Amino acid sequence: MKIAILGFGTVGSGVYEILQQKNLAKKFSVEKVWCRPSDTMTIPNFCSNIEDIINDKEIELVVEVLGGIDVPFDLISRMLKSKKHVVTANKAVIARHYDELTNLAKENGVSLSFEASVGGGIPWIKNVELASRIDNISKCYGILNGTSNFILDTMLKEDEDFGDVLKEAQDLGYAEADPSADIDGFDVLNKLIISARKAFNKKLDPDDFFVHSMKQITKGDIHYFKQKGQIVKYIGEITHDEGVISLHAVPETFVEATIPSNNNIASLEGQTIGTLKFYGQGAGKLPTANAVVQDILDISKNISYIDTDNDENNAIIDTKQNHYTFIIRTNESVDASLIKETDGDYLITHPITLSDIKKQTQLKDALIVRVITQEDWHD
Amino acid sequence: MKIAILGFGTVGSGVYEILQQKNLAKKFSVEKVWCRPSDTMTIPNFCSNIEDIINDKEIELVVEVLGGIDVPFDLISRMLKSKKHVVTANKAVIARHYDELTNLAKENGVSLSFEASVGGGIPWIKNVELASRIDNISKCYGILNGTSNFILDTMLKEDEDFGDVLKEAQDLGYAEADPSADIDGFDVLNKLIISARKAFNKKLDPDDFFVHSMKQITKGDIHYFKQKGQIVKYIGEITHDEGVISLHAVPETFVEATIPSNNNIASLEGQTIGTLKFYGQGAGKLPTANAVVQDILDISKNISYIDTDNDENNAIIDTKQNHYTFIIRTNESVDASLIKETDGDYLITHPITLSDIKKQTQLKDALIVRVITQEDWHD
Repeated sequence: MKIAILGFGTVGSGVYEILQQKNLAKKFSVEKVWCRPSDTMTIPNFCSNIEDIINDKEIELVVEVLGGIDVPFDLISRMLKSKKHVVTANKAVIARHYDELTNLAKENGVSLSFEASVGGGIPWIKNVELASRIDNISKCYGILNGTSNFILDTMLKEDEDFGDVLKEAQDLGYAEADPSADIDGFDVLNKLIISARKAFNKKLDPDDFFVHSMKQITKGDIHYFKQKGQIVKYIGEITHDEGVISLHAVPETFVEATIPSNNNIASLEGQTIGTLKFYGQGAGKLPTANAVVQDILDISKNISYIDTDNDENNAIIDTKQNHYTFIIRTNESVDASLIKETDGDYLITHPITLSDIKKQTQLKDALIVRVITQEDWHD
Repeated sequence: MKIAILGFGTVGSGVYEILQQKNLAKKFSVEKVWCRPSDTMTIPNFCSNIEDIINDKEIELVVEVLGGIDVPFDLISRMLKSKKHVVTANKAVIARHYDELTNLAKENGVSLSFEASVGGGIPWIKNVELASRIDNISKCYGILNGTSNFILDTMLKEDEDFGDVLKEAQDLGYAEADPSADIDGFDVLNKLIISARKAFNKKLDPDDFFVHSMKQITKGDIHYFKQKGQIVKYIGEITHDEGVISLHAVPETFVEATIPSNNNIASLEGQTIGTLKFYGQGAGKLPTANAVVQDILDISKNISYIDTDNDENNAIIDTKQNHYTFIIRTNESVDASLIKETDGDYLITHPITLSDIKKQTQLKDALIVRVITQEDWHD
């Protein structure tokens, strides 16, 4: 199978490297690599004109690992219209343009695959598809962003403060110069949107979803929770009718509490399978490239788990009145009816709904932590 | 697709139940259920004569969930020779007769699948196959037996002693009347034999393998390790050239330390993917049946990940001189040259080889615990 790669940064070069392995090179040949003209590094089979790829009938599959949204959306669309399979690691494009792109793929009789878009090297999308063949999946949740986990894990283990560890993460290349996507929840939100489509075939309205940044956390907070036997993790959760992205206080005996460094763990709950958890490197050159190559292998073997999407494409996640317990640290006043008790600087709420929290607009800069109990995550 | 089920105990009835779900009943029909004549319960489509299944050309796939070794081996062989696909949950048969049965399947152009044989509902076999398409897998390890994990987890959390918890597990149906397979390591050994074939395509000589029972553990031992920040788990590990099944002292901050109740976790290490971990219910009616039905779905869609086994079938796991640190509690004398230090009742060894341990025949009834460090399991 002849392949083109769009983008030759970390992941693109990783895909190229893995495809040079002896057993894979026999079957797949990277014919053209297109990347931005400003790139000066040595690019194998460099191709400056995207039309040369679109018009090359022998190229059956295109890997998109450019980053950004508008250019990739345009290019993925054109590749699909040219009846080329597309594999992408781009969660932002898939989360925003899921319907247009999956429909385009269907209309043109080709595949659009994005295993690498959620959980990097973890085979999450595939295993969600497999589970959903048999079960109604009721919930997906987990640590889906490696940068935020690296920050929290290092704050705990090295007793450092948020800003110092964030800088360290930026120096190590784990965090972007603008870290907002990672620490304010938008990266996790994209991953939950994609997971919800695969697990429930339901849409998620990003504006209707409770996303609270992790950036208010201090090493004092980490110690406070540790003393109570809880580890603070940045977690996203989505069900058929509710969801949350925020800091979570997880009992230290729970699997999630132990996830080290920049690793991810993603869980699903199914009616017959119970809880399944998938752990691995959620980002990084070779793990992410590995997920891309897994998609290439499946497409080349014509492996597809789900027959057709059933046409519930208009079903949306419909916010119900689920009640959660939160711990809040803020200098602002909070509606007294929400508070069950105070503990030093911390306010512990009654079980309240996310709407109750959202209405407290003065909490924008507060620390907000959801408290997890055995009832929340069944093992 | 028309299906027969051999055995209608816990897993067999679970498979039947899942296949009655609306979306699956359209595609799969359980035509005949064969089980031992002594069974008196109501069996749907009961069939007393196995020849009626063998001779029914319309039955394309047979599920074997009988238990035992010799009868299942005979029946699986006959079904494969009749060109029927076989799905089994029977780890003992697969571990013992891997070559004969996979060759029979190949010769007859049908599939032999056994996802449920390792890790129950966890999609372990499938994910090992997927990882091995790209990577050389260097190691598989984990908590692969739910009964032993239930015993250790309950001893820790309820401060009970081994014998009492074992009895509780037997009352709950988690442990057999003869618990030897679970607590002496033979169940885990079968699972490692199968994992090694899938991960490395290498054979494992059971007699050459270090298996040490968990039954010497007391609540005093659990406390001793807990005070050192370690949780005791019963773990199997296999690499290309070494392996061990024994109690392990795992730092309490490691994922494995947190696995609750009768759950399993299985890990693999690959050169590009890094470490992947898969968690879920390692046994039980519906999770195990779920894994059987996953195999049925893959066979019906003709999904196969691995093109052909490469013909290294004679390669065996070749015991090297890996060095591990052990902690031993025994009333017998131990070769002084092996011991680095003592701590109360406990002897802490220098890093020694498994052959060194095996040579200490007087240790048969000792507590032997392998000590795990960050260097052993990379995250």
